[in-house]
Amino acid sequence: MESQEPNVTSSTSMPLMYSNRMMLKTILESSDGEMGLIGKTVVVGGWVKSSKEVKKDPVPSPPAAADAFPVSQRPKDVTCVEILQSRIPFFRTIIRVLGGSASSPAVREKLESLIPKPPPPSTFFLQINDGSCLSSLQVVIDSAKAPVSAGQILPTGTCILAEGVLEKPSAHGKRTIELKVEKVLHVGTVEQDKYPLSRKRLPLDSLRDYAHIRPRTTTVASVTRIRSTLDFATHTFFQNHGFLLVQLPIITTTDSEGFSEKFLVTTLLGKTSKEEPVGVSDADGVSLETVKASIKDKSSLFEQLKRSDSDKELLAAALQDLRKTNELARQIEAREKSKPVTAVKHDLVNLNEDFFGRPSYLTVSGRLHLESYACSLGNVYSFGPRFRADKTVSAKHAAEMWTVEVEMAFSQLEDAMKYAENYLKFLCSWILDNCSEDMKFLSKRVDKTVTHHLEYLTLCSYDKISYREAVEILRKVNLYNMYFLYLCPANISTISLATSVRKSFDFILQHQVTDKAFETQLRWGVPLTAEHLSYLADDHYKKPVIIYDYPKAVKPFYVRLNDDEKTVAAFEMVVPKIGTLITGSQNEERFDMLNTRIKEFDLSRDQYEWYLDLRRHGTVQHSGFSLQFDLMVLLTTGLTDVRDVIPFPRSHGKANN
Amino acid sequence: MESQEPNVTSSTSMPLMYSNRMMLKTILESSDGEMGLIGKTVVVGGWVKSSKEVKKDPVPSPPAAADAFPVSQRPKDVTCVEILQSRIPFFRTIIRVLGGSASSPAVREKLESLIPKPPPPSTFFLQINDGSCLSSLQVVIDSAKAPVSAGQILPTGTCILAEGVLEKPSAHGKRTIELKVEKVLHVGTVEQDKYPLSRKRLPLDSLRDYAHIRPRTTTVASVTRIRSTLDFATHTFFQNHGFLLVQLPIITTTDSEGFSEKFLVTTLLGKTSKEEPVGVSDADGVSLETVKASIKDKSSLFEQLKRSDSDKELLAAALQDLRKTNELARQIEAREKSKPVTAVKHDLVNLNEDFFGRPSYLTVSGRLHLESYACSLGNVYSFGPRFRADKTVSAKHAAEMWTVEVEMAFSQLEDAMKYAENYLKFLCSWILDNCSEDMKFLSKRVDKTVTHHLEYLTLCSYDKISYREAVEILRKVNLYNMYFLYLCPANISTISLATSVRKSFDFILQHQVTDKAFETQLRWGVPLTAEHLSYLADDHYKKPVIIYDYPKAVKPFYVRLNDDEKTVAAFEMVVPKIGTLITGSQNEERFDMLNTRIKEFDLSRDQYEWYLDLRRHGTVQHSGFSLQFDLMVLLTTGLTDVRDVIPFPRSHGKANN
Repeated sequence: MESQEPNVTSSTSMPLMYSNRMMLKTILESSDGEMGLIGKTVVVGGWVKSSKEVKKDPVPSPPAAADAFPVSQRPKDVTCVEILQSRIPFFRTIIRVLGGSASSPAVREKLESLIPKPPPPSTFFLQINDGSCLSSLQVVIDSAKAPVSAGQILPTGTCILAEGVLEKPSAHGKRTIELKVEKVLHVGTVEQDKYPLSRKRLPLDSLRDYAHIRPRTTTVASVTRIRSTLDFATHTFFQNHGFLLVQLPIITTTDSEGFSEKFLVTTLLGKTSKEEPVGVSDADGVSLETVKASIKDKSSLFEQLKRSDSDKELLAAALQDLRKTNELARQIEAREKSKPVTAVKHDLVNLNEDFFGRPSYLTVSGRLHLESYACSLGNVYSFGPRFRADKTVSAKHAAEMWTVEVEMAFSQLEDAMKYAENYLKFLCSWILDNCSEDMKFLSKRVDKTVTHHLEYLTLCSYDKISYREAVEILRKVNLYNMYFLYLCPANISTISLATSVRKSFDFILQHQVTDKAFETQLRWGVPLTAEHLSYLADDHYKKPVIIYDYPKAVKPFYVRLNDDEKTVAAFEMVVPKIGTLITGSQNEERFDMLNTRIKEFDLSRDQYEWYLDLRRHGTVQHSGFSLQFDLMVLLTTGLTDVRDVIPFPRSHGKANN
Repeated sequence: MESQEPNVTSSTSMPLMYSNRMMLKTILESSDGEMGLIGKTVVVGGWVKSSKEVKKDPVPSPPAAADAFPVSQRPKDVTCVEILQSRIPFFRTIIRVLGGSASSPAVREKLESLIPKPPPPSTFFLQINDGSCLSSLQVVIDSAKAPVSAGQILPTGTCILAEGVLEKPSAHGKRTIELKVEKVLHVGTVEQDKYPLSRKRLPLDSLRDYAHIRPRTTTVASVTRIRSTLDFATHTFFQNHGFLLVQLPIITTTDSEGFSEKFLVTTLLGKTSKEEPVGVSDADGVSLETVKASIKDKSSLFEQLKRSDSDKELLAAALQDLRKTNELARQIEAREKSKPVTAVKHDLVNLNEDFFGRPSYLTVSGRLHLESYACSLGNVYSFGPRFRADKTVSAKHAAEMWTVEVEMAFSQLEDAMKYAENYLKFLCSWILDNCSEDMKFLSKRVDKTVTHHLEYLTLCSYDKISYREAVEILRKVNLYNMYFLYLCPANISTISLATSVRKSFDFILQHQVTDKAFETQLRWGVPLTAEHLSYLADDHYKKPVIIYDYPKAVKPFYVRLNDDEKTVAAFEMVVPKIGTLITGSQNEERFDMLNTRIKEFDLSRDQYEWYLDLRRHGTVQHSGFSLQFDLMVLLTTGLTDVRDVIPFPRSHGKANN
């Protein structure tokens, strides 16, 4: 084998990392209290979280600093000083031009003012983080040893790879270990004026526009670690319980629910290619700037001609020319505008001529497909993205969300409810066990109660109530609830108490009407809204509550009809602060009943033939549930908007990369 | 809490399973040689793989069989005999109608011939499987104890849930345990004439049309278990190595490669709703059959009128009526034809008015997005579906395929190659350790060499050669290779040897030309084809081979340019029988260079601004790779077509559910 290295040599001589870069987690969270590592030479890499420079007394012979390192080891990224030093002959030339030889005292003075003195040597203290854990490692660089400048190395976000010795910090403090750098192997600088994270502690919603950079913030890095841990916990839980993972299709021709807006997948609409710009062919090849400059020139010429009382014909010609140029500018502008309009002309798009020979969509839910595996292999689960083309912007929904789906043969609604509870408890305790550092940070910065909340979720028992019971509770608390929700906000000041009381009276006056209207809304059969669910979980039970046996009209066609023929065997697990985290059901295993339900929902029977087959041949009672994974990450991190926990969130009008 | 059970009672009295159904894996693969379970009462469920009935001597009092069980325990699904017995009064009535009292000897004879005798008691031996492991459990049902009929219970695919005692089989054999059934809790019958799996050992390609039923076959069940295990092995490997999982978006507005056909995601094209049928509004509500019948009537009336020399006016009116009806039929036929044409009229579809405000696609690769996390958090991986709208049908590609993507900051090409090799070796040994039963089955039924192949892959070292070396090897073996590939197939018979020799001479004659043509193709700079790669891995090295440093034109824009400025730091791992399993690269970390490459590929710079940001701020050397997960399942199972290992495969013209 020919040696690989010559072909991949980089601008900095970097050793191969797989073998010898040490993750900061290993250094900072090592079980022997870090002490085993003191004195070891290691390579570490990361991005600067914060930094400071401590200036030393100037050293008399500045070039020595750079020369202390052999040329081969010196990084390509050179300091400002080095650049200026290398241009000394150029400065000399300037001085010569300015008049006088370089040796005259006046010139020497000028020369000295032009060539900046090399900065006095400094010690740089960098806190660097490599994403492997929450904590940062202090990296100490002596500028006399490593030829890097403050401008290069201090800004937040700078990437650094360095070799050095792990030592005990000289100053007393929380830190028990730091790296004394011997060689800087790589510096990736930051364009500070353009760097979105230069300002410290940007609010999360401003960070959403920088989905590609925001994992460098401590919060999003913590969220990423927790999300990754939750993912592994999910696989561990189900694999340990003998479940098989089934990767379900994203593209589907089956409508899994019958009531969600879907994305169509197509190859029938294409971009118009670059070679065929829309319209205005004679305006090609000229930039708008050129034409606009030309208009300016021509306008001033025309004005000049007008003022100078020129020949009428000449004036008319100039005017016409100006108009033509204006028209050209208009055309180019129109073309520029229409350019991003990637468009296709089709009088009639026949979706049966599309890639899959029929209309196909992004899946809304994988449960129907998963059932076919449960009805063959027993206990199965899936984990993948699901899609809804919902235009309403909400903190709890995005167009693309990951979902854990579970299906169990030989099981009933009660089984699904039990499993859902156990799974949630497992996730909470797994996070408490494996992400304690991140949880501490989030409890400090995001939500003080989040760790306690998780602990409570692993311990408490989840109440189960029927939909009918839920409606009854809500009707009883209606008046009380309305009052406190709308009239007694927590931030009410004592000064405005009088106003508040006045308002309360007004409200109670109105309320005679409002309450009745509300009560009508809260009759048996209506879907429960987020507000209702929040009351039940956050205020009434103050813990997760499972609501089951929903009216058949509010749940999909496939949910098993109960013996009362009014309700279906569906449940929702509602969690404080989150709302509905898990939805589940026992699905209809009786062929005739399922057939009837498909008719009742007025769905096309054709697309469900395969699904009916599962009842036609060896049918089995089965139940399952799905957990909204992104909401689970919210629950665990204490954040409130899914767009802050999804790596690249997609919502109406937002898909920037 | 109100009791849940009354609302979810099923037609059969089934206990809650989560607590007490025992998975067959637990029984059949228990570590104490199954002996600890003998004598235990358990509930098991599964689908019948095979069955037989052994008839006993008839018992004199048949009703006793059914009566042996209290009514409450008897399943709702009743035997044929029971139905007939319950209709005795009806038969009596018939006999009375036939003339004669039930007591007369002639009538009694007739009666006896009409009422079938209950079948003699049998013992049913069922091999049932629940998907948890390869083996089936023998379930023994005494029809005298459990009122089930052979027709119900014996067909392959029947679902059964039963309670019984685990016993040692009476007959000597391989089996060490079986279930003596005491209660049949549920039977899900099979419609045998419609059941796709009634015929034994269907070829895999015929099974593809039954993606929802085929996991009931032993092969697809094995594949599913192995696929699930490979998935968990992947997470285990990367999580144990400190990698973070990042769930990347499926919907993207960034073209990750610049040379793949993509699926557009849109909400601009909708189905025409049922309420707005295309065209011909006056033909609504009348079925084609009715109109055709009417035409027949009207035609015969018209003929009658013509023959009877009727009034001209009357004749003209009848003719006009007939024509009108014909036109109506034509219109209805046209409407029926156009009905499945789910269509939209748009002169110009502006993709900037689409859901995300710009054209958006299904992702082809997640590596660019993953890089942004690697350039913040170090070592990351992703696992998800990726899409190509490729119309060519191939055993190695589908429109939707799962991919494992890995990205490491502070790393170079060599690191990615090492990690790829270690990951592949880990997967192979994990499967050997955890799926030995399934591997035995696949080695027996699918590919005799598959287990040995996996063992070899864990042990051998993978050769690394540059693209240049690969081309040189291929040019040398060209002639030899061509001869053996095309003229000496393994299945050549000695009889046709003469013909073969003759053909060989012909070939060599032609070959003077062909070889040159082939050599021209095999110059430096051309992409290597599947045939070339297969030769290198299957014939030349006979093990995985890693080819690196490809010509820059054949790899995507983001791959790092080597110092020779001709090649880029990309690699492919080619595995015998599979072809390219892993592709990887060190990606360009230099801002200017990346910018130049984007221009060279004539890509729109706008969409890569975010990607360039990663080089603008704190850039870092990084490398990574992606593994085609579906091909990995092929490698592990010995199967040859990805459509047999993807749960619901999607390819051109194929997306049935």
